Amino acid sequence: MKVHPEEQAIFEVCLVVPKRKTEEECVTYDCLEVLENAFQKVGFIVERIDGVTDEFMKLAAPLETLGKAAARLQMKKRTHIGMDLLFELDQVKAFVRQPDGSLFSWCERFRCYHHLIYGIVNENQSAVTLKCEEEEFQWNVGESLIRTLESKKIVKQIFPLHDEIRRKKLLGNWALNWWEFTGQPLDEVYSYFGTKVALYFAFLGMYTRWLLFPAALGLILQLVEFGSLRLLVLPIFFVSIIVWAVMFSQFWRRKNSALVARWQINYAFGGDSSFRFSGVECGSLQIPVELIKNQEMDKTKEKEAFQRFEWFGCLRRFRNDAIVILSIICLQLPFELAYAHCYEVIQSDVIKFGLTVLYLFSIQYFTRLGAKISMKLINCENYENNEKRADSLVYKIFGLYFMQSYIGVFYHALLHRNFATLRQVLIQRLLISEVLENLLENSVPYLKYSYRKYKIRSNKRREKGSSQGRIQFTSRAEKEYLKPSYSASIGVELEDGLFDDYLELALQFGMIMMFACAFPLAFAFAALNNITEIRTDALKLLAMHKRPFPRAATTIGAWLNIFQFLIVMSICTNCALLVWLYDQEGKWKIEPGLAAILVMEHVLLLVKFGFSRLVPEEPAWVKANRVQKASQVQDICSKQLLRTISGGEKTLNYVKKTV
Amino acid sequence: MKVHPEEQAIFEVCLVVPKRKTEEECVTYDCLEVLENAFQKVGFIVERIDGVTDEFMKLAAPLETLGKAAARLQMKKRTHIGMDLLFELDQVKAFVRQPDGSLFSWCERFRCYHHLIYGIVNENQSAVTLKCEEEEFQWNVGESLIRTLESKKIVKQIFPLHDEIRRKKLLGNWALNWWEFTGQPLDEVYSYFGTKVALYFAFLGMYTRWLLFPAALGLILQLVEFGSLRLLVLPIFFVSIIVWAVMFSQFWRRKNSALVARWQINYAFGGDSSFRFSGVECGSLQIPVELIKNQEMDKTKEKEAFQRFEWFGCLRRFRNDAIVILSIICLQLPFELAYAHCYEVIQSDVIKFGLTVLYLFSIQYFTRLGAKISMKLINCENYENNEKRADSLVYKIFGLYFMQSYIGVFYHALLHRNFATLRQVLIQRLLISEVLENLLENSVPYLKYSYRKYKIRSNKRREKGSSQGRIQFTSRAEKEYLKPSYSASIGVELEDGLFDDYLELALQFGMIMMFACAFPLAFAFAALNNITEIRTDALKLLAMHKRPFPRAATTIGAWLNIFQFLIVMSICTNCALLVWLYDQEGKWKIEPGLAAILVMEHVLLLVKFGFSRLVPEEPAWVKANRVQKASQVQDICSKQLLRTISGGEKTLNYVKKTV
Repeated sequence: MKVHPEEQAIFEVCLVVPKRKTEEECVTYDCLEVLENAFQKVGFIVERIDGVTDEFMKLAAPLETLGKAAARLQMKKRTHIGMDLLFELDQVKAFVRQPDGSLFSWCERFRCYHHLIYGIVNENQSAVTLKCEEEEFQWNVGESLIRTLESKKIVKQIFPLHDEIRRKKLLGNWALNWWEFTGQPLDEVYSYFGTKVALYFAFLGMYTRWLLFPAALGLILQLVEFGSLRLLVLPIFFVSIIVWAVMFSQFWRRKNSALVARWQINYAFGGDSSFRFSGVECGSLQIPVELIKNQEMDKTKEKEAFQRFEWFGCLRRFRNDAIVILSIICLQLPFELAYAHCYEVIQSDVIKFGLTVLYLFSIQYFTRLGAKISMKLINCENYENNEKRADSLVYKIFGLYFMQSYIGVFYHALLHRNFATLRQVLIQRLLISEVLENLLENSVPYLKYSYRKYKIRSNKRREKGSSQGRIQFTSRAEKEYLKPSYSASIGVELEDGLFDDYLELALQFGMIMMFACAFPLAFAFAALNNITEIRTDALKLLAMHKRPFPRAATTIGAWLNIFQFLIVMSICTNCALLVWLYDQEGKWKIEPGLAAILVMEHVLLLVKFGFSRLVPEEPAWVKANRVQKASQVQDICSKQLLRTISGGEKTLNYVKKTV
Repeated sequence: MKVHPEEQAIFEVCLVVPKRKTEEECVTYDCLEVLENAFQKVGFIVERIDGVTDEFMKLAAPLETLGKAAARLQMKKRTHIGMDLLFELDQVKAFVRQPDGSLFSWCERFRCYHHLIYGIVNENQSAVTLKCEEEEFQWNVGESLIRTLESKKIVKQIFPLHDEIRRKKLLGNWALNWWEFTGQPLDEVYSYFGTKVALYFAFLGMYTRWLLFPAALGLILQLVEFGSLRLLVLPIFFVSIIVWAVMFSQFWRRKNSALVARWQINYAFGGDSSFRFSGVECGSLQIPVELIKNQEMDKTKEKEAFQRFEWFGCLRRFRNDAIVILSIICLQLPFELAYAHCYEVIQSDVIKFGLTVLYLFSIQYFTRLGAKISMKLINCENYENNEKRADSLVYKIFGLYFMQSYIGVFYHALLHRNFATLRQVLIQRLLISEVLENLLENSVPYLKYSYRKYKIRSNKRREKGSSQGRIQFTSRAEKEYLKPSYSASIGVELEDGLFDDYLELALQFGMIMMFACAFPLAFAFAALNNITEIRTDALKLLAMHKRPFPRAATTIGAWLNIFQFLIVMSICTNCALLVWLYDQEGKWKIEPGLAAILVMEHVLLLVKFGFSRLVPEEPAWVKANRVQKASQVQDICSKQLLRTISGGEKTLNYVKKTV
C-alpha cells in the first residue's frame, strides 16, 4: 500500500478479486501479487482491501499516469485557442481545464484507466505461469493480464468507485435539495457523472420547468366552467400546447449546444464526426478493410467501392427497419388490440384481473425478445459510430413500447369513442404507474442490495457455524460492489439505465400530448411527477446504484427525434379527438367545423416543420466563438502547413498514403 | 499596347471609357493615360480599342499579378492535403489546380480583378488634377481612381469579357449539341461561368432526366384506357410521383455535394460558415460593431449582448415575414380571386381579353413594387452572409409569384370543381407560356442588341451626315458591350438572371406536381420543354447576353426549399383533388374512400419528412475524403500549434485579443 504523499489521489476504479487465503505462498507467482506489481509499475496507486467474501483492489492514478495514457491514446483535448489538439504531457498549459479545475474530465479519466488496466501485457520472452489458489495457468506473451484473469474468473468485476466527498456534497445540494424546485448543480453533475447523465438531468429540468405552463392551462380548463364556450376553448388549448411543444424542442437544442459549449466539448453539427468528441468508444468511420487496403486503386474505383458499400448498408438498414415495423404491425398490434378488446368485452372483474396479469407477464417476455432481435439486427448493420448504433436501437425498441403503451388508449379513444374509459385509463397510467415507478426505481435496487447482503451473511454463517455475531460490511468498496449496477431493463450493452429514464419521460410526454384534448389535467400530473422525478433519479444514481460508467455524448440523440415524432403524432390524434368531440351525433359530414380542424392540422404541421428554420439551433454567442476561433487558428497555422506541404514532397506523399 | 510575349494572356475584363479626341493633349494629365499607366503598374496587360462611340480598355492579368492580389486578399484555397489555407505566391505547388488546369477559378480570378481595379488609390502627398475633354477634376489622396472616374461618368461600365476560344467551344459542345439530350460538359461550364451557373445547369439537367419517369407514367395514363380501374390507377400514380419528387430532392442534394467536392470547394453543412467558400461577396458573420469593440467586457456581458442582438434580429425578421405574408394574403389574394372570378363570370370574349391585358399590366407593376418592398425589408434585417440575404429575398418574391401563378388554378380546381377549365388553364400555361418564354428569352436580348446597334448607327449618321456607308461594329468588346446584361427581371442587385430561370423551373414544377391527378400528361409537356430549355438557356448565356459576373455558391439555396415546399403542397392539393374526383355527387361524407385518402396523405407527409433521414445528404466517398483528410491535417499541425500556444504566451494573448 503506497499513497503518494503530496497529492491526495482519489480511488476511482475498483477490481474485485478472490480473497487471499491466510497462508503466505510464494509471492512471485501469485497472480494477485503480479497484478498489483504491474499496476504499480504502470503508475497506479493501489490499495487492497479485504472484504467479507472478496478482496477489493482500488486504483487511483496521479495526473502524470493519466497524462501518459492520454498521450498514448492520442486523445484530443480542447486548447485555449478553441481547437482540439492531440494531448501532450509537456504542453499541459495549452489545454483548457474542466469547470472543476481538473485537467481531464471524468470521461477522459475513465478512458485512460481503461486503457492502462487493459494495456498490461506480457512483455517477457516466454509465457509466465501464474498461480491462484492451487490452480496454475499460463499468461502468454503479448496477452493482456486482465483479460487472462477475467477469463479465469479471478477478476470478477471492474467498476468505477464513488468519490465519497463529492458524492456527499451532491447528495446535499442536488438529490436531497428539494427546495431548489427544478434547479440543479449541472456543472457538478457533469464533472461527477459525465456528459450523458448531465444532459439527461438538464433535459429533465428544462422539461419540468416548461411543463408548468401547460399544467397551469390544464388546471384552468379543469377548474373554470366555460359552459357553451368549451368547444371554442379546447382548440385554443390544443394550438397553444402544440406551439409550446414545438418551441420546447427547439429551445432545448439551443440549451444543449450552450451547455456543451460551456463544458468545452466540440459540438459538431450534422455529419462532421471527425470533430466529434470521441468517448470511451472511439467514434471512427467504419470503412470496410478492403477499402483501406487498396490504396493504389484509382479514384473512380475507390468511389465506386464506397458507393457500393454505402448502398448495401442503406439497403440492409432499410430491410431491418422493414422487418421491425412489419413485425410490430403484424404481430404486436393484433395482440394488443385483442387484449384491449377482451378487457372491454369481459364483464367479470376476476377474469379481467387474471387477463391483465397474464398480459403483463407476456409483454415483459415480448419486450425482451424484441430487444434481443433488435440487437441482432443492429449488429449486422454498419454505422459510423456507436452513438448512431445506440440511436438505431432506441428507435426500434421505442417502436415496441409505443405500441404497448398507446394502442389500448387509441382503441378506447379513436375506435370506440369511449371517453370515460379513456380518461380512466389516462389517470390510471399517469397517477398510479408513475408513482409506482418512482417508488420501485428506488426501492428495487435497495431491496436487491439488502438481499445480497443477507445472502452473503447467511452463507458465511452456514460455513463458520452460528458462533459469530452479525457480519458487518465495513469497506465502502464492498458495499458498492453489492449495489446493483445502473443498467437498462432491456439488458443490452449499448445502453445503460438512462434508457429507462428517457423511456419513462418519452412515454409520459406522448401520453399527455396525444390525448391533451381529452384530458387537459394530465399536464399538471406530469409536472408534479417530474418535480419528484428529478430528485428520485438523482438519489438513485448517488445512493442506490454503483457509480455508472461515464459515457460521452453531445446530444440526447434519438430521444429528441422521438419527442418530435410524438409532437407530430399528437397534432394528428388531437385533431381526430376534436372531430370526435364536435361530431357528437356521428354524422361524419365535412362541415365548416371539420374542415376548419383539417386546415388547423395542416397549419400546425407547417408550423412544426417551419419553426426550426426560424430559430437557429445554436445560440449566436456559441457560434461566434466557434467560428471566429476556428478561422483564427487556421490563419496561424496556415503558413507552417503550407511550407510543410509544398516544401517537403516526402510529407505530402506521407499524407497521401495515409489518407 | 503591350502584350507579354511568352504567355498568351486572355483579356477577361473590359472598361468602357469615352472615345479619345483626335488632337493629342498633354498626356500626363489625361485621365485615361493615367488610368492605363496605373493598370500597367499594377501588373495588368492593357489593350485599348476604339469603338464606334466609346473606347474599350481590355484588361488581362498574368498569373503573378493575380497571385499577388490573392495573397493580399488573404484568399483561402484548397491545398493538396484537403484543407483550405491562405494563398501565398511562393508556395503555389501546394495548391490544387482547377479541373481545367488553371490555378484560380473564374470566381477567384474575378475577385482579384475587382480588388486590383478598385485598389488603385492616390498614394501621392497631394491631390492630382486630372483632365478629360476640357473638364478638370481632383483625384484626392487615398481615393480610388476608378470610383472617382465612375462618379464623373468617365468609366461607364466594367464588365467581364467573353473568351472567344472557349465560348466557341462551349457553343459547339454544349449550347448547340442537341444530340446529347440532357448531357452537358458541366466542368467546362463551371470553369467558364463559375459555380452558381454550373449548379443551375446541373440541376436543370438532373431534373429533366428524372422527369422522364413521371412523363412516361403520365403518357401511359393518358393513352391506355383503364375503364373502371381508373379511380384505382390515379392514387397509385399520385403516390409514385410524390415518392419520385421526394427522392429527387434528396438525390439532388447528394449530387450537389458530389459536384462541389469534384470542383474542390469546401462544402460546409449546416451553420459552419467559416469553412464556406467565400466568393466575391465575403461571407463573414455580421456582428454589430459595438460587440467587437468592447473586447474587455466579461464573458457574461458579451453573451448577453449577443443574445440581445440575436433576438432583435429574429424579431425583426419575423415582423418582416409577417408583413409580407399578411400583405400577400390581404392585398394580393383578393385581387387574384377577383380576376379569376370575373374571368369565370364574364361571357364576352372581348371583355375577357381586355381584362386579361389589364391584369397582366397590373401584375407586372405589382411584382416590381413587391420586389422593391422586399428589398427594403431585407436591408433592415441582419444576415450572416449575402447568400442568406439572397435566399430571404427569393422566399419573399416567390411568395408573390406563387399567389400570382396558382391562385387562379386553385380557384378553378378547388372552389369551383371545374375540371374542364382547370385542364384548359394548365395546358395553356404549360404549352403556350413556356414555349413563348423560351422564345422570348432568346429573342428579346437579341432585339435589344439590334435596337441599340441601330440607334447608334442612326445617331452617327445624323452627326456626320449620310455620306458614310453602313457603320460596322468591328471590335468584339463593343459588340458585347451592346448586348444586355444577364440580370433578374425584378431588377435587384442580389440576384442575376438565374433568378428568372429558377423561377420558371419552380413554377413549372409546382404546376405539374400540384395538379398531377387532374392532368397527368403535364409531366410529358414539362419534360419536352426542359430538354429545349437546357439548350436555349445555354445559348442565351453564351450568345445573347454579356458574360455574367461570376457568383460563388455551394448549393442552389432557397430554391431547393421551395421545391420541397411545393412537394408538401402537392401532397395536400392532390389529396383534395382525389377527394373531389371520387366524391362526384358532392355528398362530403367521410366514407372509407375519403378516410383512406386522409390516411394516405399523412403517410406521404411522413415519408416526405422521413426520407431525408434514410438517405444521407452527402455520399460516403465525399464524406470519407473530407473526414479523413481533416483529421490527418489536424494531427500534422497539432504539435506545432501546441508549442505556439503554450510556449509563447504572447501569441496566445494575441489570439485572445483578436478573437
